[in-house]
Amino acid sequence: MAYPDKASNFIVKEQDPFNGEPPLEALRGAPVTPTTLFFARSHGAIPEIDPRHYRLSITGLVRAPRWLSLDDLQTRFPAHTLTATLQCAGNRREELAAHAPVPGELPWGAGAIGTAEWTGARLVDVLDGIMAPEARPEAHVHLTGLDEVRRQDRSFGFGGSIPLEKALAPEVLLAYAMNGAPLAPVHGFPVRLVVPGYIGARSVKWLGEIHVSNQPSNNYFYAHAYQLFPPWENAGTVDWSSGIKLGEMPVTSVICSPGNGERIGQNPVRIQGYAYVGGGRRVERVEVSTDGGCCWQAAQLDDGASAWTWRFWQVELALPAGEVELAARAWDSGTNTHPERVGQVWNFKGYMNNACHCLRVTADFGLLILY
Amino acid sequence: MAYPDKASNFIVKEQDPFNGEPPLEALRGAPVTPTTLFFARSHGAIPEIDPRHYRLSITGLVRAPRWLSLDDLQTRFPAHTLTATLQCAGNRREELAAHAPVPGELPWGAGAIGTAEWTGARLVDVLDGIMAPEARPEAHVHLTGLDEVRRQDRSFGFGGSIPLEKALAPEVLLAYAMNGAPLAPVHGFPVRLVVPGYIGARSVKWLGEIHVSNQPSNNYFYAHAYQLFPPWENAGTVDWSSGIKLGEMPVTSVICSPGNGERIGQNPVRIQGYAYVGGGRRVERVEVSTDGGCCWQAAQLDDGASAWTWRFWQVELALPAGEVELAARAWDSGTNTHPERVGQVWNFKGYMNNACHCLRVTADFGLLILY
Repeated sequence: MAYPDKASNFIVKEQDPFNGEPPLEALRGAPVTPTTLFFARSHGAIPEIDPRHYRLSITGLVRAPRWLSLDDLQTRFPAHTLTATLQCAGNRREELAAHAPVPGELPWGAGAIGTAEWTGARLVDVLDGIMAPEARPEAHVHLTGLDEVRRQDRSFGFGGSIPLEKALAPEVLLAYAMNGAPLAPVHGFPVRLVVPGYIGARSVKWLGEIHVSNQPSNNYFYAHAYQLFPPWENAGTVDWSSGIKLGEMPVTSVICSPGNGERIGQNPVRIQGYAYVGGGRRVERVEVSTDGGCCWQAAQLDDGASAWTWRFWQVELALPAGEVELAARAWDSGTNTHPERVGQVWNFKGYMNNACHCLRVTADFGLLILY
Repeated sequence: MAYPDKASNFIVKEQDPFNGEPPLEALRGAPVTPTTLFFARSHGAIPEIDPRHYRLSITGLVRAPRWLSLDDLQTRFPAHTLTATLQCAGNRREELAAHAPVPGELPWGAGAIGTAEWTGARLVDVLDGIMAPEARPEAHVHLTGLDEVRRQDRSFGFGGSIPLEKALAPEVLLAYAMNGAPLAPVHGFPVRLVVPGYIGARSVKWLGEIHVSNQPSNNYFYAHAYQLFPPWENAGTVDWSSGIKLGEMPVTSVICSPGNGERIGQNPVRIQGYAYVGGGRRVERVEVSTDGGCCWQAAQLDDGASAWTWRFWQVELALPAGEVELAARAWDSGTNTHPERVGQVWNFKGYMNNACHCLRVTADFGLLILY
């Protein structure tokens, strides 16, 4: 496997399969994340696909199966470009794992999120007019990748499904370009799905098959992984049919700088971060606390590029000397905000951590006086 | 004004304008709330409208203004019945007011919510084909009632607006019947809007005017009231243009019985309540704690009648003797859950309290031994 083209400061969490995220301060550098800094999440080796032989099959509850080449996708359907954020369901798992063990899962920091300009055909345009009459409104569109993942003694393509209603929404793209260039192999070349507002896992890379069914997917990564279980369950006790199947992401906000444990030598301090919510809701407000969540003040919010992107925020604050606990919280257009503590959202798979992001810095202005 | 036809145990919070809610235990009696127990929220006197002379005007960015009679609405458009929950944005304000004052606002308990079978024409059917080409996708549909409310030295009909996208959704009804009978005067006779998933205030009663505009409403109850402000603001300091305009409601869950302060004489105790979320998301899980929110266990969830209704839940638990703090929390299909404490969501207007619902009961089994 070729080593993916990532920036020198990219943090590789796992070499094979390739998984990594950028440092938070670099992530906060630009509202559209450079591809070399965009987090990578893969479950198997990155497949090498010859674009001339690539075919996307469309089967199931459609009038007739069909196979689309890359050229078909690029020429037979209008191209749309949408700036959208993708976030891994495991983003900020590290904080959950510090509360209680999350065995066997990658300890993502808060950088398993990124925003890109995606270009491709709308899934609704590809499905338009070809649905079989048997497809019910509650049908699911199953998605399977051309990668090969081994789980439970079987090899299969990474996959899952999304509700038909979401599949037909205009923001869902069969993307063949990211930030103006063909997809990099690690990001799904030649074609991936992009499902804005949903967990990253539904944006299936190296997309090989679309299958319409009246049932949700049985793929391991829908029926087994990527579910939210209650805090009292673990892998030994859980009924694997009982979780909340992950889709839309709740509101989150993260302090990108200063970093946890940083020493601050100068006032005022510029505190900055990102905030994001799925489901097409908008981040409406971000607040920052310097006293562990007792008092809050407003941060300035940048515009987002669309209803499907994060919003950057910043605030300049004068800190008291000594150790200070910083916290950030956001509110979305449905007036959702965060649970306060990671203990409220801990789950043994380590998904969907949207507790208030807290960190400690030490303000030490003594050095300035000495000079 | 005739006294509205309400049950004898209905709690009148204010006589004029008429406002009231049912006791929680009665509310939890049936998943479709009897009309005599359904909360009432009005801002002026209940208008007396002769249905023979009633006209609904449709103006603004439409090809031509039109006026529909009640008979037009009932005969020219298909009738749809939808079971849907409405909840006042001020539901559970009482808990906020116990944390810090909420001056001038009604101290609603947790009963300013109810579920009914609404019958009417779909707003989308009425607007279908009559929109002017100037109406942009981000247009708003303004709604004004035939009641007369006095605010800021002016008299006007209660109103507000909803995004055009929501107005065109199939769940939004011009309702002329509630639970199989014509609307009661206090609930909007002869016609009200029903906007499932949004704060109750957008379900304008005694609906007189629909006006399509590329701007949101300037009505007091959209532009001034019904906004969420940060916790550091009050009526004297706030910039009234800066709040989050209320629409979709966040996930909430409430213990309906036992009641706060109740003495429990027998184990196990049946704990039961409701849970609800707006925005078309579903309540997926409810958990109950008997130790102030440290440990949680699952409650059984009843089905909801639709994606737009609450779900009832219950669990039987053996309590230790002495004072016990009960708490309930829900999770929705977007994995949103509650802030833990009312202090996290307090705002001077007292809206959108979805903190974990907590109450104290005293288990006293000694009486049983004495007999």
